[in-house]
Amino acid sequence: MNTGNRIFKPLPLRKVKLSGGFWGEKNQLVREKVIPIQWQILNDEIPCAELSHVIKNFKIAAGEAEGEFHGQVFQDSDLAKWLEAVAYSLTTNPDPELEELADQMVDLIGRAQQADGYLNTYFTLKEPDKRWSNLRVCHELYIAGHLIEAAVAYYQATGKNKFLNQMCKLADHIDRVLGREKGKQPGYPGHEEIELALVKLYRVTGEERYLKLSKYFIDQRGQKPNYFETEARGRGEQFSADSKHFGLGYYQAHLPVREQTTMEGHAVRAMYLLCGMIDVAIETRESALLESARRLWKNVTQKRMYLTGGIGASSYGEAFSFDYDLPNSTAYAETCAAIGLVFVAHRMLQLTPDREYADVMEKALYNGVISGISLDGERFFYVNPLAVSPEVCANRHDHFHVKPERQKWFDCACCPPNLARLLTSIGEYFYTINQDEIYIHLYGNSTAQVGGAEEVQLTQETAYPWEGKVRITVSTKQPTCFTLALRIPGWCRQAQLRVNGEEYNLLDGLVNGYAKISRRWRNGDLVELMMAMPVERVYSHPLVAANLGKVALQRGPIIYCLEEIDNGPNLSAIGLPLKAKLTVKHRPDLLGGVPVITGEAVRITGDDWGDSLYANQPPAQVKTEITAVPYFAWNNRGNGEMLVWIRET
Amino acid sequence: MNTGNRIFKPLPLRKVKLSGGFWGEKNQLVREKVIPIQWQILNDEIPCAELSHVIKNFKIAAGEAEGEFHGQVFQDSDLAKWLEAVAYSLTTNPDPELEELADQMVDLIGRAQQADGYLNTYFTLKEPDKRWSNLRVCHELYIAGHLIEAAVAYYQATGKNKFLNQMCKLADHIDRVLGREKGKQPGYPGHEEIELALVKLYRVTGEERYLKLSKYFIDQRGQKPNYFETEARGRGEQFSADSKHFGLGYYQAHLPVREQTTMEGHAVRAMYLLCGMIDVAIETRESALLESARRLWKNVTQKRMYLTGGIGASSYGEAFSFDYDLPNSTAYAETCAAIGLVFVAHRMLQLTPDREYADVMEKALYNGVISGISLDGERFFYVNPLAVSPEVCANRHDHFHVKPERQKWFDCACCPPNLARLLTSIGEYFYTINQDEIYIHLYGNSTAQVGGAEEVQLTQETAYPWEGKVRITVSTKQPTCFTLALRIPGWCRQAQLRVNGEEYNLLDGLVNGYAKISRRWRNGDLVELMMAMPVERVYSHPLVAANLGKVALQRGPIIYCLEEIDNGPNLSAIGLPLKAKLTVKHRPDLLGGVPVITGEAVRITGDDWGDSLYANQPPAQVKTEITAVPYFAWNNRGNGEMLVWIRET
Repeated sequence: MNTGNRIFKPLPLRKVKLSGGFWGEKNQLVREKVIPIQWQILNDEIPCAELSHVIKNFKIAAGEAEGEFHGQVFQDSDLAKWLEAVAYSLTTNPDPELEELADQMVDLIGRAQQADGYLNTYFTLKEPDKRWSNLRVCHELYIAGHLIEAAVAYYQATGKNKFLNQMCKLADHIDRVLGREKGKQPGYPGHEEIELALVKLYRVTGEERYLKLSKYFIDQRGQKPNYFETEARGRGEQFSADSKHFGLGYYQAHLPVREQTTMEGHAVRAMYLLCGMIDVAIETRESALLESARRLWKNVTQKRMYLTGGIGASSYGEAFSFDYDLPNSTAYAETCAAIGLVFVAHRMLQLTPDREYADVMEKALYNGVISGISLDGERFFYVNPLAVSPEVCANRHDHFHVKPERQKWFDCACCPPNLARLLTSIGEYFYTINQDEIYIHLYGNSTAQVGGAEEVQLTQETAYPWEGKVRITVSTKQPTCFTLALRIPGWCRQAQLRVNGEEYNLLDGLVNGYAKISRRWRNGDLVELMMAMPVERVYSHPLVAANLGKVALQRGPIIYCLEEIDNGPNLSAIGLPLKAKLTVKHRPDLLGGVPVITGEAVRITGDDWGDSLYANQPPAQVKTEITAVPYFAWNNRGNGEMLVWIRET
Repeated sequence: MNTGNRIFKPLPLRKVKLSGGFWGEKNQLVREKVIPIQWQILNDEIPCAELSHVIKNFKIAAGEAEGEFHGQVFQDSDLAKWLEAVAYSLTTNPDPELEELADQMVDLIGRAQQADGYLNTYFTLKEPDKRWSNLRVCHELYIAGHLIEAAVAYYQATGKNKFLNQMCKLADHIDRVLGREKGKQPGYPGHEEIELALVKLYRVTGEERYLKLSKYFIDQRGQKPNYFETEARGRGEQFSADSKHFGLGYYQAHLPVREQTTMEGHAVRAMYLLCGMIDVAIETRESALLESARRLWKNVTQKRMYLTGGIGASSYGEAFSFDYDLPNSTAYAETCAAIGLVFVAHRMLQLTPDREYADVMEKALYNGVISGISLDGERFFYVNPLAVSPEVCANRHDHFHVKPERQKWFDCACCPPNLARLLTSIGEYFYTINQDEIYIHLYGNSTAQVGGAEEVQLTQETAYPWEGKVRITVSTKQPTCFTLALRIPGWCRQAQLRVNGEEYNLLDGLVNGYAKISRRWRNGDLVELMMAMPVERVYSHPLVAANLGKVALQRGPIIYCLEEIDNGPNLSAIGLPLKAKLTVKHRPDLLGGVPVITGEAVRITGDDWGDSLYANQPPAQVKTEITAVPYFAWNNRGNGEMLVWIRET
């Protein structure tokens, strides 16, 4: 196995045990609610908008059931993502019954796989002679990628290699069909995913062909003659390569990836591509690829990212639009795209432990990712705008993509299972390690086995993100030297650090936003990090036209919003004075127990306005009290308006 | 003839001679530029996006040319609107050459007309057996309406009755086919227009059947069982009557018109329906119909109208959305819809001389109507938003309906000819008369023959709308008693009136916004109206979310806007302090000579901001000078941003 190229490896999921706390509870919610619900959906036991039919498709493909393929061309991936989430769940919380279900699914997948390794129920059942003929649209490689990710996770969770072997067979098949060599098709996926999956497969099997195949997909993308154009011509399809919204840019195939300077097209695809680029660059240390990945990261995070870590400002194409175009009410900001951004940030941290990456990861996690799931784990947002008016969504076609309430499931059900696999594996995002350094990126109640002969264990105790104090206890059988690097988040403007009760000068050891404590650690050593967590006012870059004159509220990593239920309707009528005092109130009764922000504000009122639509006198303003709640928790108390960016008066 | 039911008749076009001034110049522009250009287009002599083919269609239908029908199903109406504009032009500015062209077209129309009176080149050439089988979509009655309007205008202009007789034949045919009587189809048009046209035909011919037919169309609309549903079923078409955007509401056929309380659907259709309702109500004095028209008028003008008089907040369906939903950058505000609103207001004034109606008429005329045509008369806006960013229009699909520059012509070329017929007949909107009252609704250099034996003539001299002073000289062969009622516009907060140099107490005679001067007028009597015309700040009703915290600038009836060429890019970064002094500067060099508004404002600047997308410090503000120009004149100096509603700071 070759994972040595990664300088900063994530501490594997099995080493990090969450014990309650914010992420522990989310993790539990997914294990107890989402995975069982999704299992029922995969088995068509819950009436959704459309039946899933996923397992049925596999059974038909295996020759064990009668019927036709139903669902999206990428339907198989739903089973893959479920299995991946199950694998993570089994890693942290063994469950023989669940594992037995998963084993059955692995067996079924094996029986649905073709003799040559090919695996895709859509093509097997519907168009067996059309395999690999429409890489741009038909998601064969995307599904393969998700299955491979699931197999790697399942192998790591259980040690069982059946699924992994099946997927090696599939990868080998792909390797025989696609590539630059004579007799192969020089194609690559319309929806990226296989790239990052193949690197995972390479890391777990040590088979260099998989890394090479991944690198091929990265390298070939956007080269001329463009494969998607050739392929479309071959099928006699009209494909407008230059089309603004669904041309090559939609697929990030308008230029070779090393020449791309702005992140274009479908936001989820773009993030998965970036993941693949970084993964390959981690292994190959190719600076041009790294450079391009960093450039695209900067373009996204400095010009195309919502305050919540949501990305994709255009519903048409589920895509990036252009620099600083971040409209609030028409945002797409797909849950999966924010998840993709987390994946990217997590990989960036494996190259460079810079707070910049962890800050974005944290921002997306606490806001634009988990806004996707209701507090009870039963409903989901696909689209996560920063301003919602149910009346506008119901009446304006340009807001039809925005659902003002979370849905039970979706025809295109990518987001809920994506949330499931992220939240079941969230422990893996806490730490990266490098020889004698341990980086802590996320804070949350947990115990980490940092491994090595010394059996170092780190125990975090904290009420983060609601309180800024984190206690980290070191357990070690014998004194051992290493550096503990604690992220001082970008949002934090005042922090204190104590080691065994003694003040530690933060400035001394702050490297790229991490406070590094290098010492010979003894059992029971205690690190205390105190991050001041006042309410912060946040402003947008002045080129973000949508937010000019507006302010958002943040406390710790949590972005706040106004909801109609707390603040009445017509939220845009609220103005927050520049100097208004803002107070935090802990509300154990509210939304599962969250601090709310309250303050004196003003509200434009129509009380004395009369009937006319326009007038020469400004409308009256009255004083009002506002209450802001965490953005991720909105729409858990019925439907109504929501607003993140508030007029500052 | 029976026109006696109208209490306040418009002073006919032939009686009002414009002599330069604002409307005189627009009128001249249309006569000299638009009518000849449109003639060339109708003859396919100017390469447009798509060839017009209109005259060719008529020639083929007349059996005088080979080929097939080309164009929209409503293509015939382009010739009708051209003829109507020509008729108005001939009324005020005789032109034998142009009249000869028009006569040829009338002859051609006659030859294309079928023996039974039917006239429609699409159906005659393409689907002769499908006549009257798709009233909802196919515009047969719409075209008939426009042809009838043209014929009435042409008769009034020239005294020639050939066209009129052709159209009577067509109307008679329609009367035989459609109606509630046995053997007829109980249908009505998908696009209203015939209703108002038939009332015109009735008024000029005195034939009561035409009024009755018009009233039938009004009465039948939206009755159950719904004709459009029945009709669709008959054709085996799937028609979703309840569909949000293209169901019955789109056609104003969701309810009988007397039961409608909000103005729904396609904005142009809605306005033409209102015109028909009012026209019928003027003749029948039916209070329920009047009541409904007034209710719908109030809904539009108090809840669904942009500050410019533009209507239709949704591009999808070119339609009204819901109360107070008036987004600026995604507005549709079709030029034709604002024109339709002028038609409605003009009819309201025939029932009730209330400033409310004339104010809206004036607002639309000076802003949302003539924004549709460039100052040189060569380019046109179809869509008239109140905020435009060319970058957003180019990149965001939800703004694709907005063209950031005026176009030469359109595939669906309704707006330019509609502008042409309105601006050639603008004189008819100046006055209404009633026995011994003369109401002045619009101010502009002109001479009006008020008629009667006394041959009273009113001469207006004014630089309106740029200056608020209007001199009205009365000429009369012998002293004569009548009431002169001068509109004191709603925008005007301070006015003075003098009669022969003597102050006239405005409050004494102000009725519904009109200053009434009743006296025995002698030749040479001089009325002087002085309207103070400071810069006014305008605010929206607080339920208009888009404009909360924003202010617009108005002077006289003219709405102002900021353009990038005067104020730099990122116009939303500009804030106008509540107390900022605003100054008017007359700029004879600019935009054909307009006053501009200048003032001290502030601008949020990104100069010291850095790379980050979000920060905890508000961005810096710098002082800036703003220059606002009349909204209608924007985009006459190249492309760039435009903004009406400015943040007030």
